[in-house]
Amino acid sequence: MNQPPVNEPAPRRSGRRPGDSGTRTAILDAARESFGASGYTGTTIRGIARTAGVDPALVHRFFGSKESLFGAALELPFDPAELLPLVLAEGPHGLGERLVRTFLGIWDATPGQGPMLALLRSAVSDQAAAATLRDFLTRAVLAPLAQAVGADHPELRASLAGSQMVGLAVARYVVRLEPLASASPDELAPALGRALDAYLTGPLG
Amino acid sequence: MNQPPVNEPAPRRSGRRPGDSGTRTAILDAARESFGASGYTGTTIRGIARTAGVDPALVHRFFGSKESLFGAALELPFDPAELLPLVLAEGPHGLGERLVRTFLGIWDATPGQGPMLALLRSAVSDQAAAATLRDFLTRAVLAPLAQAVGADHPELRASLAGSQMVGLAVARYVVRLEPLASASPDELAPALGRALDAYLTGPLG
Repeated sequence: MNQPPVNEPAPRRSGRRPGDSGTRTAILDAARESFGASGYTGTTIRGIARTAGVDPALVHRFFGSKESLFGAALELPFDPAELLPLVLAEGPHGLGERLVRTFLGIWDATPGQGPMLALLRSAVSDQAAAATLRDFLTRAVLAPLAQAVGADHPELRASLAGSQMVGLAVARYVVRLEPLASASPDELAPALGRALDAYLTGPLG
Repeated sequence: MNQPPVNEPAPRRSGRRPGDSGTRTAILDAARESFGASGYTGTTIRGIARTAGVDPALVHRFFGSKESLFGAALELPFDPAELLPLVLAEGPHGLGERLVRTFLGIWDATPGQGPMLALLRSAVSDQAAAATLRDFLTRAVLAPLAQAVGADHPELRASLAGSQMVGLAVARYVVRLEPLASASPDELAPALGRALDAYLTGPLG
């Protein structure tokens, strides 16, 4: 498996300057505030830039897309806007198993599954946080997946696959259903990958 | 689909007497206290009877098994100890789809998905509650499912199927991933059912 892209966005067109660290912190603080108060859809790069007192172009230069900024603000250990395209780029053959291995690779490697579990916890306990997670997942994960599918009902297929990924996270890391919680990726990936492939390209009816 | 058994346990061998209601309430209060403090595994019918000041035989008479008592104490709108055997009794053909339709039938019919969501919320926010949910699911759902499977690695298969059911609940009722959240059981059951069947009886490796 490829190493997931590290979520440490580098400045795009110039080296990092001495004042960058304070600016980055101000942007991330403004982003967390806005995602918390206005949700994923209600947050704009322009609004974050205004709160942070910087030019929107600087936010783009530091963090790229809103998806990447969301990941950085929540300290996710991967950049969803970079990772998924990598997995999809290898083509449809074996896609389900690659998705599962990538997913387990990130979750297993993150001590306590900290930031992802925090996101899940807030979504389960609070409707606004659930909407934020939904809009983020839809935009950053399900939409690219649906676009890559090339079959009928791509959005339904992507959301079926999403439900299995969410369930894998909850069953393995939260409820710890055994033996799934202790199984290795090699024991899990073939069956889960086939299920994802079937959701994405198999018959629906 | 069959109507799920209503979770209103009737006394087994005699009519309900005037004093039964207070006794039932005392037993349910003691059960909630014990499941909360000692978890699912640490709770015994005998201990509940002692706290409620009644004979253990009376707890059995009112509520049957510990699984049923757990469901009643949490006001689940179904009795897991009665429902799953009914679904399994129809045999392996179409089992996955029956499981999905039964599951969706209960969740969709419960306003706000109240007691099930409360169980899920407490499990996601609290490790002891997660252990209680795990032990309950393992005993009341996964073990009977594994026993019915008749294939290699029955426990792993049951936990894979469990992960999809948990994910279906979280994706449809908590995060509300679309279009899965708004889709009808008829749109969802065939694909999800095939995935469950594959987990339960298909190749794993």
